[in-house]
Amino acid sequence: MAVSVSELLGSCPVPKSDYEQILLGHGSGGGLSAELIRKVFVPGFDNDVLSMLEDQATVSLEGTDSTRLAFTTDSFVVKPIFFPGGDIGKLAVCGTVNDLAVGGAKPMFLSAAFILEEGLALEDLKRIVASMRAACAEAGIKLVTGDTKVVDRGKGDQIFITTSGIGVVPRGRNLSIRNARPGDKILVSGTIGDHGIAIMSVREGIEFDTAMLSDCAPLASLSETMLNSVGSIHCMRDPTRGGVSSALNELAEASGVGVMLYEAALPVRAEVKGACEMLGLDPLYVANEGKLLAVVAAADADRLLAAMKGHPLGKNAAMIGEVTEKHRGRVIMKSLIGGERVVMMLAGEQLPRIC
Amino acid sequence: MAVSVSELLGSCPVPKSDYEQILLGHGSGGGLSAELIRKVFVPGFDNDVLSMLEDQATVSLEGTDSTRLAFTTDSFVVKPIFFPGGDIGKLAVCGTVNDLAVGGAKPMFLSAAFILEEGLALEDLKRIVASMRAACAEAGIKLVTGDTKVVDRGKGDQIFITTSGIGVVPRGRNLSIRNARPGDKILVSGTIGDHGIAIMSVREGIEFDTAMLSDCAPLASLSETMLNSVGSIHCMRDPTRGGVSSALNELAEASGVGVMLYEAALPVRAEVKGACEMLGLDPLYVANEGKLLAVVAAADADRLLAAMKGHPLGKNAAMIGEVTEKHRGRVIMKSLIGGERVVMMLAGEQLPRIC
Repeated sequence: MAVSVSELLGSCPVPKSDYEQILLGHGSGGGLSAELIRKVFVPGFDNDVLSMLEDQATVSLEGTDSTRLAFTTDSFVVKPIFFPGGDIGKLAVCGTVNDLAVGGAKPMFLSAAFILEEGLALEDLKRIVASMRAACAEAGIKLVTGDTKVVDRGKGDQIFITTSGIGVVPRGRNLSIRNARPGDKILVSGTIGDHGIAIMSVREGIEFDTAMLSDCAPLASLSETMLNSVGSIHCMRDPTRGGVSSALNELAEASGVGVMLYEAALPVRAEVKGACEMLGLDPLYVANEGKLLAVVAAADADRLLAAMKGHPLGKNAAMIGEVTEKHRGRVIMKSLIGGERVVMMLAGEQLPRIC
Repeated sequence: MAVSVSELLGSCPVPKSDYEQILLGHGSGGGLSAELIRKVFVPGFDNDVLSMLEDQATVSLEGTDSTRLAFTTDSFVVKPIFFPGGDIGKLAVCGTVNDLAVGGAKPMFLSAAFILEEGLALEDLKRIVASMRAACAEAGIKLVTGDTKVVDRGKGDQIFITTSGIGVVPRGRNLSIRNARPGDKILVSGTIGDHGIAIMSVREGIEFDTAMLSDCAPLASLSETMLNSVGSIHCMRDPTRGGVSSALNELAEASGVGVMLYEAALPVRAEVKGACEMLGLDPLYVANEGKLLAVVAAADADRLLAAMKGHPLGKNAAMIGEVTEKHRGRVIMKSLIGGERVVMMLAGEQLPRIC
């Protein structure tokens, strides 16, 4: 390469920010990610749908009988690519299905784009494809289009997968991160932190008495069950990167409400609690890949919880908190011993390449 | 990492193929790419839409007045990320818009997923976002959802972008790679090989008297003009990776027809011809990012050509061949001196990471 790109293109006047390079923390799903989205992507692409910052875009189609589509995309760069309870392929299907499901959409069509590193074992690719197919079948979504690129050895890391999904939002459903109201109850569909700790246990070589499995699962059936059981679910989110804390901080900010969590009510597996203590992690910040949070009118909360517990993916569901007038924009946790502390959004990077 | 992945997961019985690892050529858009799709992806995901192998999936939405959506995805790993005539951001928007456009769809919504390498200059990211925004505006598509992941230094290459697009296919349009019929004429919208040679010229440091610019452009307006000018366009393709030869070989196979090309009619810029001679390349195999091929009933070919020439992105359009009964499944070129030769699909890798 004899001609430098900057020579060819000249310099471009862009204002300097506090950091001048991308940091690992920009991919954390926490504060730095949020800052990158708010400072670069939203102003860069300035439009009303993107600015909503939901997990999925909901758009209407011209010329149809007001069909509302949900549309979402995610790249997956998890390391290692095979882990207890799943692999990058299953994760790539579930992640996108779940972003549709928590928007109240019925997942319909999936795309998958593969960036392969030269030298990836073909056998690994075939296993990943088989796993994606099984996950698509479980989620009731159809993979209809795809792409494959190959990068030279040392310019990628085995395999990256980007999935995009289209779902249809039934008439009358209007879930949004902006819809939480004081008095609403907050429910989680099961134990938190399982995915992140499963990944960390492989990376760090930690052994447990029982296997630490990722919770990676498609939540479309659970979310349908929930939406059919009560009419007052105001918002759902899947607490992936950045964990429950980041999802609830985004909710508190977007809805202009406070969130009060009860530490005693948080479902955390004993092994996850132990691993978090050993690794210096807080389960509230650890990623989940098969859990959802739901914000529901108080009057319907018990009924919704019962419906969740009746579903195989919701049997450990719990009511973990409520939406408050006080502390607008913040998440507060009432601790086991009765004290209160602010649960901040994850600032930097806790677990790189967790999904 | 103390526990090996294979120990955790056990071995998986997958039949061995001729190659056991992914090769750069699997990303070429030529024969090896086609083999990977046919041997791994299509059987892996076995379903009727994916098996069509169009540039975009066309799907119908349940419960709507038979709205037909086009859905497509592509990852972009071009190197360098800034090149004369464009950058990876513009390419990522145009590539997906063009896959919708050649399916006869009106591009509506775009998603963008970024895989950033730790250390990428924030200024570069901002320039790329600005360029994507401009391309979206030109193409009339709205970027509505996105994602960002960051990989550690040395595990990516600055920036990879995956875009997915949704378009609406107006009633009555039925373009397909399977619809070419003997007697149809084949038109190209302009000079071929410009994108690939622009990229190569930067990589190899070749200087030209005039700047070699990528043809990277969104073709939605051109395709609409064409589809509105005549009713008998049977198929359109954008000849990207693998060039005109791969696109026409796919067409010949899918439609079960022969293709006859006239070398004398192929529009190739003198600089591209010169660079190809110097680099040992054939313009028929070099990627384009702002050109389309159209297959049209003979009776309408002249009218379509005139419509294309009337559009800024089609002013160098030409009729370059025809669909034949003979040589089914093959592309034959009548050379300048009257001989005939078979134009094979690109077998291995000619220009890695061209898009």
